[in-house]
Amino acid sequence: MSLLVTGSIGIDTVETPTGKAVDALGGSSVYFACAASFFSPVRFVGVVGEDCPVDFLKPVADNPRIDMSGLEVRKGAKTFRWHGRYHDDVNERETVSVELNVLAERGPTIPEAFRDSRYVFLANTHPALQLELLGQLTAPALVVADTMDLWIDGEREALGRLLERIDALVLNDSEARQFTGEANVVAAGLEIGKMLRRFVVIKKGEHGCLLFAGGEVIALPSFPCGDVVDPTGAGDSFAGGMMGHLAAVDRADPPTLRRALACGTVIASFTLEDFSLDRLMRTQEAEVEHRLAAFEEMLRF
Amino acid sequence: MSLLVTGSIGIDTVETPTGKAVDALGGSSVYFACAASFFSPVRFVGVVGEDCPVDFLKPVADNPRIDMSGLEVRKGAKTFRWHGRYHDDVNERETVSVELNVLAERGPTIPEAFRDSRYVFLANTHPALQLELLGQLTAPALVVADTMDLWIDGEREALGRLLERIDALVLNDSEARQFTGEANVVAAGLEIGKMLRRFVVIKKGEHGCLLFAGGEVIALPSFPCGDVVDPTGAGDSFAGGMMGHLAAVDRADPPTLRRALACGTVIASFTLEDFSLDRLMRTQEAEVEHRLAAFEEMLRF
Repeated sequence: MSLLVTGSIGIDTVETPTGKAVDALGGSSVYFACAASFFSPVRFVGVVGEDCPVDFLKPVADNPRIDMSGLEVRKGAKTFRWHGRYHDDVNERETVSVELNVLAERGPTIPEAFRDSRYVFLANTHPALQLELLGQLTAPALVVADTMDLWIDGEREALGRLLERIDALVLNDSEARQFTGEANVVAAGLEIGKMLRRFVVIKKGEHGCLLFAGGEVIALPSFPCGDVVDPTGAGDSFAGGMMGHLAAVDRADPPTLRRALACGTVIASFTLEDFSLDRLMRTQEAEVEHRLAAFEEMLRF
Repeated sequence: MSLLVTGSIGIDTVETPTGKAVDALGGSSVYFACAASFFSPVRFVGVVGEDCPVDFLKPVADNPRIDMSGLEVRKGAKTFRWHGRYHDDVNERETVSVELNVLAERGPTIPEAFRDSRYVFLANTHPALQLELLGQLTAPALVVADTMDLWIDGEREALGRLLERIDALVLNDSEARQFTGEANVVAAGLEIGKMLRRFVVIKKGEHGCLLFAGGEVIALPSFPCGDVVDPTGAGDSFAGGMMGHLAAVDRADPPTLRRALACGTVIASFTLEDFSLDRLMRTQEAEVEHRLAAFEEMLRF
């Protein structure tokens, strides 16, 4: 079933305790699309500026499972840039600088051929823009959005309108606490779950994830990794793996949701093993299958 | 197979954001024994002072699966007391006051009838005392010890000697990081795992647990709980459930270890639903079975 992603394309500079990547490929839609492509074809929508190097998106464009017809190179605009720094605790990151550039302008236009997309992921951006993108779609079956602290704090009304229109939300644990004022993340998830038609997923980084669908709760650990090189994009990769599986099997009952979370967890575990998309681009399908089987085995008792 | 626990018996005062328990039953061996008793008979070793109310240990003493012949009421001594306070984040606790009392004196004597115990849990105390207790045993098959930051910091040499003599260690994630200087808890676990004959378990509170046996890593989430009343004793309950299962089936291969972790996880999820031992004492075997089955189902994909 068709899967569409809208989100950022970024020129990222990332510093970690062990190294640095300068002007590397990043952005939520890029991580999402590459991750999802292991499970499903992906329709990609995003905007870069004229400053974006010609071959910058080649790793994505060369992927036969990713349809790049939704990429816009906007005249007179500059590409989104992010510079982040991780310290010893990779769950904590500091934004050194951010240049929104094209992300601060009008949003992308979803190509005619993509408007009938059934599975849709609206990566994190202003909820009003997410609503505007959603309005361009003609027959969405499952719409999932990501959000962040900035909109939870400052755009609660727009976020509220978005939640009424989408099926599911993805956010991280600190955001879920902030959203509800609940210190207990399970209680927070149950509360947010009531605001959504289908489900809410709380990402906990190295501690795995939680999914709330009605009163049902699913918890999965992360795939254990003793050598995290760069966690940038792990959350978007997780969402990509999850949505890729849901689109591939075209349903979202509890067993399917559990497998979707596992697919997201396993794909994210590759992303963080190197800078930028480097590890994900090298990942073979057989490796994904192998790690999924190991994850399944680890959780069987 | 016989299971022995040595550890503290405490008169606890606990404050949480939602309530307070004053002079309530606590202590590592108490939580451990009650939790383990769902899976295996338990031999209990511990010391209280003359100040301990006669019926204080009744909930444990009345449990037909717990053999209390190792309880010593020491003349002239006072019982261990702990007063703790939890804030909104129940993973963080503050010790308001602690009176070691009898715990600062000589350790307990393991009764003759208990010395042939095969499965042994040495709850957290000075590693030299743990070694001394271990020395009283004639035929241990699997010895697991718990430890804490105080000994990792100040008694590293004694702790090193202990690690050479035991089969497995249980500690929490911050202690594992402190022990190794590794920020990544998986890397820390792999490193500590090399120091032990069998395995190391890292407890992550609401985030579940990790087990390292040789190069193998097992991660499990906690059993989702939206209403944590008092997390005191959850870690010792976890260890009790884990050891109870291992003693019951008398082996510790990877599938058995996974089930043991699940038993510990599920038992701990009852403990934190009320103050002191209150919830655990009310728990029926059928509830444990039911929650174990739900946990198993949640992790199947």
